[in-house]
Amino acid sequence: MRVHNFSAGPAMLPTAVLERAQGELLDWDGSGMSVMEVSHRGAAFVACAERVEASLRSVLDISDDYACLFLQGGAYGMFAATPLNLSAPGDTIAFLNTGDWSTKAIAEAGKYAEVAVLADTSDSLHTTLPRPGSYTVPTGAAYLHYTPNETIRGVEFDHVPDSGGVPLVADLSSTILSRPFDVDAHGVIYAGAQKNMGPSGLVVVIVRRDLLGRPRRETPTVWDWTVQAKADSMVNTPPTFGLYLLGLTLDWVQENGGLAGMAARNQGKASLLYDTIDRSSFYSNPVDPSARSWMNVPFVLADPTLDSTFLNEADAAGLTNLAGHRSVGGMRASIYNAMPLAGVRALVDFMQEFERTHG
Amino acid sequence: MRVHNFSAGPAMLPTAVLERAQGELLDWDGSGMSVMEVSHRGAAFVACAERVEASLRSVLDISDDYACLFLQGGAYGMFAATPLNLSAPGDTIAFLNTGDWSTKAIAEAGKYAEVAVLADTSDSLHTTLPRPGSYTVPTGAAYLHYTPNETIRGVEFDHVPDSGGVPLVADLSSTILSRPFDVDAHGVIYAGAQKNMGPSGLVVVIVRRDLLGRPRRETPTVWDWTVQAKADSMVNTPPTFGLYLLGLTLDWVQENGGLAGMAARNQGKASLLYDTIDRSSFYSNPVDPSARSWMNVPFVLADPTLDSTFLNEADAAGLTNLAGHRSVGGMRASIYNAMPLAGVRALVDFMQEFERTHG
Repeated sequence: MRVHNFSAGPAMLPTAVLERAQGELLDWDGSGMSVMEVSHRGAAFVACAERVEASLRSVLDISDDYACLFLQGGAYGMFAATPLNLSAPGDTIAFLNTGDWSTKAIAEAGKYAEVAVLADTSDSLHTTLPRPGSYTVPTGAAYLHYTPNETIRGVEFDHVPDSGGVPLVADLSSTILSRPFDVDAHGVIYAGAQKNMGPSGLVVVIVRRDLLGRPRRETPTVWDWTVQAKADSMVNTPPTFGLYLLGLTLDWVQENGGLAGMAARNQGKASLLYDTIDRSSFYSNPVDPSARSWMNVPFVLADPTLDSTFLNEADAAGLTNLAGHRSVGGMRASIYNAMPLAGVRALVDFMQEFERTHG
Repeated sequence: MRVHNFSAGPAMLPTAVLERAQGELLDWDGSGMSVMEVSHRGAAFVACAERVEASLRSVLDISDDYACLFLQGGAYGMFAATPLNLSAPGDTIAFLNTGDWSTKAIAEAGKYAEVAVLADTSDSLHTTLPRPGSYTVPTGAAYLHYTPNETIRGVEFDHVPDSGGVPLVADLSSTILSRPFDVDAHGVIYAGAQKNMGPSGLVVVIVRRDLLGRPRRETPTVWDWTVQAKADSMVNTPPTFGLYLLGLTLDWVQENGGLAGMAARNQGKASLLYDTIDRSSFYSNPVDPSARSWMNVPFVLADPTLDSTFLNEADAAGLTNLAGHRSVGGMRASIYNAMPLAGVRALVDFMQEFERTHG
């Protein structure tokens, strides 16, 4: 029996996607081979990769001004690859620090360039977001980097920051495909697959072509976006199974209304859960309502001695992976695209029953 | 119906491994979740990763003097990561150039250090290997790098090169787990998974611990072997599905006699195919017999105008992916661990019948 899985990532995938993959795991498209067993340079897989890219472009409305790359190393790898591809030694890179993932991206960029942190929400324990107009991007910055959604504290931008004319770079890992997104406002978008796109081990990079052509000499070839763009991401062997699953997931997104459909569904799920929390004094969420994430909903019990009871009883009820991040504690429900409304309803019902029993 | 798949990589996996993965793809170990859907930091997956490492250590007889890392970026990524972790700017790195993969590793290392190519088999079109004693490793070299098996020309070392006291580094991608291997003679071994271990997207690094601790400052964190060794390869999200499949594959290796069993099976397959080629004037293999690979067997027809007929008829007979590398042409049969003897017998039968019909 499938459970309702609230893991922050790797996270649940649509059951229909897994069933499709299961059905053809030993015999892909009548080939007598698994999709994992064929050459990435063979005609069948090349056609698969082309379909995946076309689907991604269609779903996210990505123009030909952008290259789409399918690489390895996760978003954390791109924390290094981005300065290597977009800056020179001594350049300044501007950052908005809105949580743990921003903080890691800043530390990594500091190996390659000067960093200027224009806004930092540490004082609020990352429960707020920088107000538009409250910071100014330095002239000549190589780019402005931000994290549209932070998984640990559960904050999410509801607007695109003003980058003051320099390229805007987004680590979109935990919110890509969850709602319409203004690609054209960005120079680079990258996202690990393991939240809304597929299994871990695949990172998607969407880069405006006019930013290519200036990698540092010491950029590892597999992360040289200019080289990979020319080679259709096949300088080396891409993570073929992840790419294939991304394709199935994109099909599922399209069959379910595209990004508008995802947004409606995700907003509904998030509202139901936040409303339940806010109506109760037993549960609370510390995030500024305007900054609340649709993807990751952390909450705490008024009585934290009940945490382990809550988690154990939830698990027994088929509601899994609800523990908060180890750095925060409490609870966190990650409700990415693949989580059905029924899963959030089941969680809300459980929470209300738990409050009646233990409140 | 499953075919006999001679792909050079990504390559066939044991059918038993795929069947096991298929059976539990939506419900791993009774969890109600796919192994792809669980956190890499959760107890279940951490236990899985620990079992995989223990199996790898057991199968390859890896001592505690070595760390085993499970990373992303492929062997090509490690072409950059190795100099970043093991050399300083201005150091000399020694190489044996025995084919296309060595050549790529040399070019990548040249971004980070001085390169000394001690032996180069280009003159024989990489159909030979450097003789022991024919080269001398420079005193003070950071390390000596070689490629025990080259997939494109089909050459394979039958001995461990003498590194003259500097650390020996092997790109073992295309022959790992195929026969016993002297890990202790090496400072570092790395290998992409997509030949003998699992799907593409996972690279295994086995590094002697005394070589850790001196990464360059600009080493990307996800490729910082020192940091990853301390973090059990979980600085960022590892390719969890690939790790899981590696575990199933290692179980299969153990159930089939370990590396001694693999060696007997692989030598038998290779002998059958080379003998068939050598007994015929219709087929030929240009590689010096002492340098022939057990994993990749390239061969050409005396009449190359028959190549496409051969490939089409083979494909129709359920013998797929036999085209030679695009840089070489002709035919290539990759016969990694997962290829059963029955597959090679079927190929040999087909080749003999084709020769009778078209010779």
